[in-house]
Amino acid sequence: MTASTAVVLNSRPHGEPKLTDFRVETRPLPPPADGEVLLRTLFLSLDPYMRGRMNDAKSYAAAVPLGGVMEGGTVSEVLESRSPLLAPGDVVLSHDGWQTHAVRSAEGLRRLDPAQAPLSTALGILGMPGFAAYIGVEEIGRPAAGETFVVAAASGPVGSAAAQFARIRGARVVAIAGGARKTEWIRRELDVDAALDRRSPTFADDLAAAAPDGIDVYFENVGGAVFDAVLPLLNDHARVPVCGLVSQYNRTGADEGVDRLPALMTAINIKRMTFRGFTQRDFIATHTEAFRADVSRWWREGRLRYREDIVEGLENAPAAFLGMLRGDNFGKLVVRVAPDAPASGASPA
Amino acid sequence: MTASTAVVLNSRPHGEPKLTDFRVETRPLPPPADGEVLLRTLFLSLDPYMRGRMNDAKSYAAAVPLGGVMEGGTVSEVLESRSPLLAPGDVVLSHDGWQTHAVRSAEGLRRLDPAQAPLSTALGILGMPGFAAYIGVEEIGRPAAGETFVVAAASGPVGSAAAQFARIRGARVVAIAGGARKTEWIRRELDVDAALDRRSPTFADDLAAAAPDGIDVYFENVGGAVFDAVLPLLNDHARVPVCGLVSQYNRTGADEGVDRLPALMTAINIKRMTFRGFTQRDFIATHTEAFRADVSRWWREGRLRYREDIVEGLENAPAAFLGMLRGDNFGKLVVRVAPDAPASGASPA
Repeated sequence: MTASTAVVLNSRPHGEPKLTDFRVETRPLPPPADGEVLLRTLFLSLDPYMRGRMNDAKSYAAAVPLGGVMEGGTVSEVLESRSPLLAPGDVVLSHDGWQTHAVRSAEGLRRLDPAQAPLSTALGILGMPGFAAYIGVEEIGRPAAGETFVVAAASGPVGSAAAQFARIRGARVVAIAGGARKTEWIRRELDVDAALDRRSPTFADDLAAAAPDGIDVYFENVGGAVFDAVLPLLNDHARVPVCGLVSQYNRTGADEGVDRLPALMTAINIKRMTFRGFTQRDFIATHTEAFRADVSRWWREGRLRYREDIVEGLENAPAAFLGMLRGDNFGKLVVRVAPDAPASGASPA
Repeated sequence: MTASTAVVLNSRPHGEPKLTDFRVETRPLPPPADGEVLLRTLFLSLDPYMRGRMNDAKSYAAAVPLGGVMEGGTVSEVLESRSPLLAPGDVVLSHDGWQTHAVRSAEGLRRLDPAQAPLSTALGILGMPGFAAYIGVEEIGRPAAGETFVVAAASGPVGSAAAQFARIRGARVVAIAGGARKTEWIRRELDVDAALDRRSPTFADDLAAAAPDGIDVYFENVGGAVFDAVLPLLNDHARVPVCGLVSQYNRTGADEGVDRLPALMTAINIKRMTFRGFTQRDFIATHTEAFRADVSRWWREGRLRYREDIVEGLENAPAAFLGMLRGDNFGKLVVRVAPDAPASGASPA
C-alpha cells in the first residue's frame, strides 16, 4: 500500500497566514480502482488564489476544509494505471494538491510531452497562469496596436505572460515589478516599452511619465498602491480586467480615511470605462483551444520569456507560499516534490 | 430681425447650483444663411447630465462656457428655411439649448411626425433618455429571461424606460423611486415585479426581500444609498451599466469614513462582475436604427407607460432643473417654451 505525505490546512488564517496554519500528515492511499490511476507528484504549483481557498467565505470556489489537503495544480507521473487512458510512466497535468501521491480517475488528465516544453511550464505560462493572462488580454482587455497596456507583478507568471501577450498584439506595454532585481529582469528579458519598480518613491510619477498618453488597459492582479497610481491615468474607454488583487488577500477589516468608492464610480461613468472581474475557470470550455494554439506557437517560435522560482521539497511549500504573498518569489513559484523530477528548462535568467 | 431669449450660465456652481448661477438674456439672431433654418423652441428637455456641463472639468463633453447658453435638447418648429431639407412649419428634434429661438444648419435635424407620437416624447422615451435606457439594457446589462433587474429613479424617463425594456426581455424587474407617490405610480403603471420606495427606513431590507435570488443586472443611474443597498446583493457575473449618478452630481469633496474602494474591487474580482460606464452618445452611429425600430413598435403596441412633468415657460427652467437634481420632478421634465406648443399626450396618469 502506498502512502501520501500531504500539507493540510491546520487552521484558518486571520490576515497573513502563519506556518502553524499548515501541518504535514502522512496517510495511506487505497489502491486504484477500475478507471483510476496512482500518481506521484513531480511538481506542485503555488499560486495566490490558494489564499482565498483558506478562508471559509463565499467565493467562486469551495474553501479547503479544515484538515483537508491544500489545493493545487500538479505535474504528476503515473505509477499504476487501471485505465486504458494512461500507462505507467505517462506524465500528466493534474490537480492533486499539496501532496506526494494521489489516486484518482484517469478522466480529464492531460498527458504532457516533455519534448514540447519543460514539464513545469504546464503549471505556468502554458498552464493556468498563462491562460488567465490570455483571457485578460485577448478576451477582456483587448489592447489595440499602439494602445498603452499596464500590468504589475510582471516578473510573475501571470504578469509576465500578460505583458508579452499584449506586446504581441502591438500594444505599448508598461510592466511593473517590486524591487530593483525584478525590474531589471523585466527590462532585460521582456520586450516592453517601460519597466518600473513599484517600490520606488517616485513610482506614481514614473508611471505617469511612462504613460504619456494615459492608460487604455490595466491588467489588475495586485491592487493597492499600484491601482491607486493607475486610476487617475486611465483613459476614456479604458478596460480593467480584474484577475486578482494579491496585495489585498491578507487584508483584515477596512481602511479608515476617505471613501473612494463614489469617486471610482464617477470615474467609471465619466470615462465610460469597463471593470470586469474574471477567473480563467469560466473560460476553459470556450477558450482552451485558442490558448493552446496561440501560446504554444509563440513558445515554439521563441517569442516568450518565462522565469521559474523552484523550491525543493514539499515540506518547504508553506514557507514559500507565505513568501509569495509578500512578493518574495522571483518568477513562477513551483515546488519540486519528487527529488528526481527533471530540472526545468524555462528561461532561468 | 428675430431675438432669442436664453438662459445662460452666470457662474459655475460649487455643489448644489443656485438660481443665481443662471441669468436670462435676450440677444438678436442673424437671419439664416444658405443651408440654415430659423427655429423656435416648442419644448426644452431638462436632464441630469446638464449638471456636469456646468463644471469646468474634463468629461466626455465640453463644458458650457461662462455666459454661454445652457445646453439641451429641443423640439423646435421651423419658422424660416434656406435649406431644401426643411420647410416652415416642420417640427424637428434639435439641440438648441435653453432658449426661445435659434439659427442653425438644417443638416442632421430629424423631422418629427406628431401623428406617430406626441412631439415631446422625442425628448423622452423615444429620444435620448429612452436611448440611454435601451443601450444600458440591450447592449450592456442584457438581462436574460428570469434574471433579476434593478433600476432606480423608475418614475423618471431613463429608469421607467429601462424597467420596461428589461420586462419586455422577460427579466424579473425591481423598480425603485423616491417617495410614496412615485412608488405608487410605478406599482400601478409599470408591469414590474416589485416597486420600492428608497426613502423607506426599511429600504435595504425591502430590496433584499424583493430580490430573493440576488441581483443580476443593476442599471446604475443614481448612486449613493441605492447602490449601497444593491452592492451586497449582486450575483456572480452581475452586470452594472453605469449610466449616471444623479445623487453624486452636487457632491463636493469626499466622504470621510471607511474606504470602500478595495472592497468594491474585491467584489468585482470574486463575483466576476462587469461595471461599465457608458453614454448613449457613443452608440448613436451603431444603435439608433435598432432603438427606433424596437421602441417605436413597443410604443405603437401600447406596451410602454411614460410620464411627463411639464413646466410652463423658459423662465422657470432654472428652478425646475434645481428641483430635478433633488428628485422633485415626477416624470420626464420638459419645459414648454412656446405657450402654444401642443399639449403632450404621454400617459399622464
